[in-house]
Amino acid sequence: MKRSALTGIVVFVGAGPGSADLITLRGARWLGQADVVLFDALTDPALRDLAPQARWVDVGKRGFGRATGQSTIDKLLVAMARQHAVVVRLKGGDPSVFGRLEEELQALQAHGISAEVVPGVTAALAAAADLRRPLTRRGQGRSVTLSTAMTREGQLRATRQADTEVFYMAGRQLGALGRQLVASGWPPDSPVCVVSRAGWPDQLASDHTPATLAAACMLHAGRPTVVTVGAGAAPTASLGIDPAPRSPGKTAARTRASSSMNLGVDHGQDSVQTRTA
Amino acid sequence: MKRSALTGIVVFVGAGPGSADLITLRGARWLGQADVVLFDALTDPALRDLAPQARWVDVGKRGFGRATGQSTIDKLLVAMARQHAVVVRLKGGDPSVFGRLEEELQALQAHGISAEVVPGVTAALAAAADLRRPLTRRGQGRSVTLSTAMTREGQLRATRQADTEVFYMAGRQLGALGRQLVASGWPPDSPVCVVSRAGWPDQLASDHTPATLAAACMLHAGRPTVVTVGAGAAPTASLGIDPAPRSPGKTAARTRASSSMNLGVDHGQDSVQTRTA
Repeated sequence: MKRSALTGIVVFVGAGPGSADLITLRGARWLGQADVVLFDALTDPALRDLAPQARWVDVGKRGFGRATGQSTIDKLLVAMARQHAVVVRLKGGDPSVFGRLEEELQALQAHGISAEVVPGVTAALAAAADLRRPLTRRGQGRSVTLSTAMTREGQLRATRQADTEVFYMAGRQLGALGRQLVASGWPPDSPVCVVSRAGWPDQLASDHTPATLAAACMLHAGRPTVVTVGAGAAPTASLGIDPAPRSPGKTAARTRASSSMNLGVDHGQDSVQTRTA
Repeated sequence: MKRSALTGIVVFVGAGPGSADLITLRGARWLGQADVVLFDALTDPALRDLAPQARWVDVGKRGFGRATGQSTIDKLLVAMARQHAVVVRLKGGDPSVFGRLEEELQALQAHGISAEVVPGVTAALAAAADLRRPLTRRGQGRSVTLSTAMTREGQLRATRQADTEVFYMAGRQLGALGRQLVASGWPPDSPVCVVSRAGWPDQLASDHTPATLAAACMLHAGRPTVVTVGAGAAPTASLGIDPAPRSPGKTAARTRASSSMNLGVDHGQDSVQTRTA
């Protein structure tokens, strides 16, 4: 292991699932100290306001990108840490969940570079919060599994491991996912909720069953999607879906009271809903 | 449903797993607007600095508490929302994961009171970040399940549902949990990592196997604990455990470089480690 006393630190920061205000205070403070920020395509541009002093480098698909391989990002991290005191590697959601964190940690380790990880809100939690549908429920929802619907080999694989399953990155294959859900033991009338752009003002949610899941494809096309199945997908008793996350201070709380339990009306933004279940 | 145009809003805010700086910016902003904050025992007292204007009401075990029943909290929420514009219900971790959110949402719904949920970092994510051990790994860790080790009936139940399992609230029963893990199909030499007070400066982590898990009881006694089993519990390649989360700005990044890959030494705080595996 090669080490240099002059090498900087790389801080992996979970940006949360979207909207810039879902980053943690700790993450925001590290951004404020960053000399350079390596970020992915999905993160909110408004996060830049938290580190106006830093050089921002896009390593998402539009920039250096996965097309040129993970190794390019690894090399860039090492090179940046040798030039700067604080390098922030900003990742969508939480770095420890589907963030390819391990490879980047290993690359830094091989070069004796310090790393720090700041957790973030992963998309499943943001989707549950937006819809006010807890992932765990008393009595019937003791466990929740987060998984990717696609295997490394590009196979679609649905499972029934826990009371609630949340599938990441299933957006384009929702019809096939519905069939796989039934094949893996989910009753055809199980509650399935699809949320795209969780945590963003233009978040979109729709209710389905495995049998009707294909219908969600068009609605959520081209948007990052999480699919929740089972106990945590069911509406909270008679609560309707309220898909529009609000920001504090934008409207007076007292005037919001009557709209908040309804289906996203009068929030002044596009909150399309479908209910095919 | 009874409704009043003068009723306030109740905002459920995930405080994160401990240290106050793991709350989201959105959560912090709602605290800044709160008239009253209902909080649980576990949340960091430093969070009070984010809402000095608010009345803080302890509804954790030391205050109104679970001893007097969930219904007391429900009634208090309703009463507060009728008196104040913004009521923040602060919950440790993420409200949607083991937060008993459903009951409180239902109580508000029954009285026509608006609710909003701000997600937070759940303890499993904070533990993974502190140890720099991603919960998902390329190739071998596609899924992660979060569950409580105790059933509602007080039974201990370990499972092997996903590549990585994280058990919440298993602190006192670690020996029994180890036996249950083997009974549920985990190899006796599986990696098991116990983290208590994840996200706090005095976080504590220890490595075990199901066979040696009982040894963790004493070490983590009286502290909130998460137990990670399987792929996500293994050290990231040859990375050592580095259990001391740092805050930005406390020390210069360049002087930290040489200590960060080691076992928590020279962080100026108590970072006991055991490795029984």
